[in-house]
Amino acid sequence: MPHHDLVIIGTGSGNSIPDDRFAGLDVAIIEHGVYGGTCLNVGCIPTKMYVYAADVAETIRRSGTYGVDASIDKIRWADIRDRVFGRIDPISRGGQRYRQFEQPNTTVYLGHARFTGERALAVAPTDGGEPVEVTGDRVVVAAGARPAVPEMIADSGVPFHTSDDVMRIDDVPRRLTIVGGGYIAAEFAHVFSALGSEVTIATRGPALLRDQDEEISARFTELAAHRWNVLLDAAPSAPPERRADGTILLHCPHGTIESDALLVAAGRIPNGDRLDAAAGGLATHPDGRIVVDEQQRTSVPGVWALGDVSSEHQLKHVANHEAAVVRHNLLHPEAPRCTNNAHVPSAVFTDPQVARIGLREQDCRERGIPYVTKVQRYGDVAFGWAMEDTTGVVKLVASPDGTLLGAHLMGPEASSLIQPLIQAITFGLDARTMAEKQYWIHPALPEVIENALLGLPLD
Amino acid sequence: MPHHDLVIIGTGSGNSIPDDRFAGLDVAIIEHGVYGGTCLNVGCIPTKMYVYAADVAETIRRSGTYGVDASIDKIRWADIRDRVFGRIDPISRGGQRYRQFEQPNTTVYLGHARFTGERALAVAPTDGGEPVEVTGDRVVVAAGARPAVPEMIADSGVPFHTSDDVMRIDDVPRRLTIVGGGYIAAEFAHVFSALGSEVTIATRGPALLRDQDEEISARFTELAAHRWNVLLDAAPSAPPERRADGTILLHCPHGTIESDALLVAAGRIPNGDRLDAAAGGLATHPDGRIVVDEQQRTSVPGVWALGDVSSEHQLKHVANHEAAVVRHNLLHPEAPRCTNNAHVPSAVFTDPQVARIGLREQDCRERGIPYVTKVQRYGDVAFGWAMEDTTGVVKLVASPDGTLLGAHLMGPEASSLIQPLIQAITFGLDARTMAEKQYWIHPALPEVIENALLGLPLD
Repeated sequence: MPHHDLVIIGTGSGNSIPDDRFAGLDVAIIEHGVYGGTCLNVGCIPTKMYVYAADVAETIRRSGTYGVDASIDKIRWADIRDRVFGRIDPISRGGQRYRQFEQPNTTVYLGHARFTGERALAVAPTDGGEPVEVTGDRVVVAAGARPAVPEMIADSGVPFHTSDDVMRIDDVPRRLTIVGGGYIAAEFAHVFSALGSEVTIATRGPALLRDQDEEISARFTELAAHRWNVLLDAAPSAPPERRADGTILLHCPHGTIESDALLVAAGRIPNGDRLDAAAGGLATHPDGRIVVDEQQRTSVPGVWALGDVSSEHQLKHVANHEAAVVRHNLLHPEAPRCTNNAHVPSAVFTDPQVARIGLREQDCRERGIPYVTKVQRYGDVAFGWAMEDTTGVVKLVASPDGTLLGAHLMGPEASSLIQPLIQAITFGLDARTMAEKQYWIHPALPEVIENALLGLPLD
Repeated sequence: MPHHDLVIIGTGSGNSIPDDRFAGLDVAIIEHGVYGGTCLNVGCIPTKMYVYAADVAETIRRSGTYGVDASIDKIRWADIRDRVFGRIDPISRGGQRYRQFEQPNTTVYLGHARFTGERALAVAPTDGGEPVEVTGDRVVVAAGARPAVPEMIADSGVPFHTSDDVMRIDDVPRRLTIVGGGYIAAEFAHVFSALGSEVTIATRGPALLRDQDEEISARFTELAAHRWNVLLDAAPSAPPERRADGTILLHCPHGTIESDALLVAAGRIPNGDRLDAAAGGLATHPDGRIVVDEQQRTSVPGVWALGDVSSEHQLKHVANHEAAVVRHNLLHPEAPRCTNNAHVPSAVFTDPQVARIGLREQDCRERGIPYVTKVQRYGDVAFGWAMEDTTGVVKLVASPDGTLLGAHLMGPEASSLIQPLIQAITFGLDARTMAEKQYWIHPALPEVIENALLGLPLD
């Protein structure tokens, strides 16, 4: 039974933990899927490469607005795919090779791990064979999450895609139905419709992007309905079916949707269940996440968890921060650090982009926090004119005294424009000082932030 | 001889000064050109509308990189022009109408003003007639600047354009020669080449954008040479000529350049000379700028100046700030405010965009300030991958202890990405804290800033 000083489950952010300072330890890394984790292989990075190609395609379609008449001659999906994975797959393979063959102190187990006791695991090799018992003095659980698939679809026998495989398909489906209404659904709806599909989004909920501020969600849903076939309150009412010609039928209260491919983007489930976390003694939340404290310690001594398997934020930048905290705490148990997730921003790379940090208007209302808001249109600042933008907005939520509570952006460059607001909220810069005591380049797009700040009806 | 409580010369930022709080004063506003000033009519705003159309055209030309094959069918220059000025001209006219006809306390003089004594002016009406003597208890000089035209060109009799008129021409010239190498030259080179011209840039200097950090200037010059015919050290060696067929010949040490139109973009001269500033008792700098103190007071009591006529920064956001200071100081002479131009950023909306704030590497070297630098490539962060960017960089200049001294960006969204750095430098946030104590959304483009900060070789 191999015993290691440190066992890491998962090769996303977990893989980044061991650096030179771990050279004196016997380290094991366990991976049951593609090396490198969700972000690199099936998440943030490849999706953004597709999104940018989609952005370019949409720019071309809308170019006439600017006096530039253009037409798309051909969209080379296979070339896009091969460019994306031609770049990513070697990184994944290189990362695996490095740990497997170039680090004498590291053992890589390719297989699925299940806890059998405290700091004890059985690893079933991916290529078959008997499970291996692996134990560690210390264990880091960084096993991520996986796409959730409604049972009615999973059990139907009808083929479907998730974010795990849809980017590797051979061609753009003529008609694509997406089940779900969150950020993954919104990003893929943009990608596939820009690259040639007729897209239907069918979501259980009454709006798209329901995690956003209610006004952003409402505005986005309205815009989306102009571009995609958006079906709200559309939980599947019966199992999907597949015709002999390959057409897929999705039944929902609105009727039956015919399409050529089905993409399930209905959230992600933390992988604690598949690890038999309970057998390892690890406490979990009702939603399956492993319970951790502010030092990323689980309920079992010597076991830490980080990232999607334990975090309420399924975000790579959060996982990276947590991995840095765990790395420090493994190296310096006498002076542990805490994770600081007080101000976590996020973005949705759909069209238009959406970005947020902090409290939403509904949070303030529900918690009884006094607040004021300002919604500033991109179209009312000079660069917004230049872009002929008619839909972009910056919505700020602040205390009446000017303390910034939240920022919610929808429009071009939202994921970049939000950074000064992240910085202000994180470091406690108030709205008035932020607006008035620094320069905003005229006529650059951040003037929309400046004007939003100036427009807050403060005391 | 009309006497007013307040006389304002110039309708750019000057026109924004009188608000409701000036209702009790007899105000005069003098304008000798188009109402609304440089920014609105011939500067920031229309250029950016053209630049965005140019950006779209270039995106289309490069779309094959992303697997989207497209072609430009037609560029409708006249439609772009009419869209731009169809939006701007009514604002100019509306602004004039408001001051002329809707403000009972305001007199608008349309004519050219010259000082005849302290706070005394002669205004020669634009539509002819005798000059009017106008005096004021208080005078604000906000008369801006104008394009500089080398005498050899001005006296040649060969037709040429400046930024004042080139945006209103009837069609894109097949071949355009631009004299100059600064930001105006670089922006119009992008606009005209993207919209169809073969562009030659002939500059006296050894590089383009010489006001930038030396490395940004060098990198930009190299990139420009791939897209335009860039002639350095190319001061005209003889007056330009015009052939009978309309071809314009520009003679420089590199030979004779043939083109169909000539654009002079060789800097801007403050308009103090045309105002006979000396006759008004106003001290001027050797370069013609009116001397002001930190309250924007000139050397004559009761006379203020602001914007391009007095500032070392020919930037609208600076003029706006100075106008706000002057407005306050007119209203509250007992508690005057000072202009704060300690940290003035700027951007060049060419291709790629360029943005800067603070010290350049050459400033530190020349002043003997200890410094470290980091040049971070866009292409090394995830969104830069998605953009397939190979040329974008963020260059930071900092003290070895981490105090940020300057930031110099060249690449997509540079004018937006710089804002958190403006904020950090303005409010004294050091590099390490800025990088490590806030979140940077993954995989958004601001990660290039984060990585630049983390890469600084600090003590």
